[in-house]
Amino acid sequence: MELSLFNILDVLGTIAFAISGALSAMNRRLDPFGIFIIAFVTAIGGGTIRDILVGNTPVSWMENTIYVYLIGVVTIFAIIFRNKLNYLKKSLFLFDTIGLGVFTITGVETGIVNGLDPIISVALGAMSGTFGGVIRDILCNEIPVIFRKEIYATACLIGALVYVTLYDLNVDADIIYLVTSLIVIGIRILAVKYHLTLPSFYPVHPKSSKRKR
Amino acid sequence: MELSLFNILDVLGTIAFAISGALSAMNRRLDPFGIFIIAFVTAIGGGTIRDILVGNTPVSWMENTIYVYLIGVVTIFAIIFRNKLNYLKKSLFLFDTIGLGVFTITGVETGIVNGLDPIISVALGAMSGTFGGVIRDILCNEIPVIFRKEIYATACLIGALVYVTLYDLNVDADIIYLVTSLIVIGIRILAVKYHLTLPSFYPVHPKSSKRKR
Amino acid sequence: MELSLFNILDVLGTIAFAISGALSAMNRRLDPFGIFIIAFVTAIGGGTIRDILVGNTPVSWMENTIYVYLIGVVTIFAIIFRNKLNYLKKSLFLFDTIGLGVFTITGVETGIVNGLDPIISVALGAMSGTFGGVIRDILCNEIPVIFRKEIYATACLIGALVYVTLYDLNVDADIIYLVTSLIVIGIRILAVKYHLTLPSFYPVHPKSSKRKR
Repeated sequence: MELSLFNILDVLGTIAFAISGALSAMNRRLDPFGIFIIAFVTAIGGGTIRDILVGNTPVSWMENTIYVYLIGVVTIFAIIFRNKLNYLKKSLFLFDTIGLGVFTITGVETGIVNGLDPIISVALGAMSGTFGGVIRDILCNEIPVIFRKEIYATACLIGALVYVTLYDLNVDADIIYLVTSLIVIGIRILAVKYHLTLPSFYPVHPKSSKRKR
Repeated sequence: MELSLFNILDVLGTIAFAISGALSAMNRRLDPFGIFIIAFVTAIGGGTIRDILVGNTPVSWMENTIYVYLIGVVTIFAIIFRNKLNYLKKSLFLFDTIGLGVFTITGVETGIVNGLDPIISVALGAMSGTFGGVIRDILCNEIPVIFRKEIYATACLIGALVYVTLYDLNVDADIIYLVTSLIVIGIRILAVKYHLTLPSFYPVHPKSSKRKR
Repeated sequence: MELSLFNILDVLGTIAFAISGALSAMNRRLDPFGIFIIAFVTAIGGGTIRDILVGNTPVSWMENTIYVYLIGVVTIFAIIFRNKLNYLKKSLFLFDTIGLGVFTITGVETGIVNGLDPIISVALGAMSGTFGGVIRDILCNEIPVIFRKEIYATACLIGALVYVTLYDLNVDADIIYLVTSLIVIGIRILAVKYHLTLPSFYPVHPKSSKRKR
C-alpha cells in the first residue's frame, strides 16, 4: 500500500475503534476470539459502510492485510493491559473520538474522490464516522453511542461541513485533514468536559401516550 | 433527475420514513443533529438495502442531492410541529404506511428492471419496504416494527405478489403502482382499524423450556 | 445452477439457518409471513454479507430462485412440526451448527476465489458464518448468539484457519470442505456437551465503575 495520509488516517481510526470494541467485548465477558471479532467489526464498520455505499468492492480492509494484523495486535494489547485501562480512561475516550474524527474525514474524502456532491459527501462522512460505534453498541446490547448525552453525531457533521467548505476554497489537503480532525475531536472533548449539549426537542403530549404508533 | 413515477414514489417514501424517524429520535430526546441522522438513516434505509443488494452503487441517494435536502427540511418541519404531531397521529401512521407501500414497489420494480426472477423481486420488495422501519427501531431501541401485532410484513408481501402478477399480465406500469400501493396501504389500515391479525403459531412445549438452544 | 459442492453447502447452510430463524420467529409469536421473513433474512444473512463485501452483486440468492422456494418450504415445515421441535432440539442445535460451519467455508472459499489474502479469507469466513445468527438475534431481540457462553465464533475462526492451511498444502477441495466442516461442527458440539469455554478476560476495576465512557 502506498502510505498516503488517507491510509494513515484510516489505520489510526481502525486502531482507535478496535480498542473501543475490545473493551466493550471484555465488559461482556467474551472469550479472546469473541473479543477479536467485536474489535474487528467495530474497527472496520465505518470504512466498510463507506466502501459498500459507493461500490468500492472488495472493501478496503480486504485488499490490505495490515488491518487484520493491526486489529489482532490491538486485541492482544487490550487483553494484556485490561486492568490498566481504567487509568487510561481518558486516552480511550480520546481514541474513540479520534476514530470518529478520522472516519468522518475518510468518508467525506471518499465522497469527493467519487465525484459526489459536497452535501452527499458530508452525509457519507457522518455515516462512516458513527457506524463503527453504532455496530459495536448494537452487538454488545448497549445504548447506541449516538444516543449518549454528549454531542457526538453533531461534532461529526460540523467537521464534515468544515471539510467540504475548506475543500471548496482549495485549501491544501493535509491542512484540511488537520483542521477537520481537530474540530471534530475538539468539539467532542469540550462537550464532554463542560457537559455541553444541544437542546433536545421532546414533544409534549397533552394526553400522556407512552408509545406512538 | 428525470421526474419518473419511480422517482416520485421514492421521494414520497423518503419523506414518510424521514418523519417517522424524526419522531422516534425526538422521543429519545436526541439533539437536532441526532434527529436528522436518525431521520436520514430511516428514510434511506429501504432504498439503500435495495441498491446494495443488486449492486446499484453509488446508491441512489448519493447520485441525487434532493434526498438530503428533503430529509433536512422534513426534520426541521418535524421539530417545529412536534407538539402538533399528537393530533397528526393518524396522518403519521398513514405516512409510515405509505413508506412501506412505496418502498415495496420500488424494490419489486428494481428487481424486474435488473432481470431478476419475479419471486426474487417479491423478496427484494419485502426487504426494501420493511428495512427502513427496522433500522429506525433498532437504532432507537424499540421493538422492531415487524413484531408489532398488526399485519405489517404481510401487507408488504401481498402487495409485492400483486405487483408481479399484474406485471406478468402486461398491465400498464402506472396502474400497477397505483393498485399495489393501495393494496399495501389498504391492508395495513384495515388491519389496524379492525385489529386484524393472522394466526400465530406458538410452539407448545410439553416441558416448559424458556429458551431454545 | 451447476450442482457444485459449493452450491450444495450453500443450500445446506440456508436450510439450517432458515429453520433456526423460523423457530426464533415462532417464539416471538409472529404470523406466518413474519416467520417467513425472519427465516429468510437469517438464512441469507451470512451469504449476503459475504457477497456484498467482495462486490458479488446481485447477491447469490437473487440469481437463483431455489433459495426463496427452499426457505418457503422450510418455513411451512417448521410451522407444521412446531410441537415436535422440542424432541428435535438436538437436531436443531445440529442444524444451527451446520449453518455456522457451512457459511464459514463458503466465506473462506469466496475470499480465495476472489484472490484475497488467506488471512482476509479467514476474516470473511468468520463474518459469513456468524452474521446469519447475529441478524436473527438482533431482529428477535435476543442476546446475539456470539455472546452465548459456549464456544461459537472460536469454532468458526479455527475452522477457517484450518481451511486456508489445508488449501496452502494443496489438499483436494472436497477433503478441505469435509475436514473444515467436521472441525467447526465437532468443536461446537464438544464445547456444548462438555461445557467447554475459553477463559474470558474481564477487566478488574479498582474502583467499581459500572459503565466505561
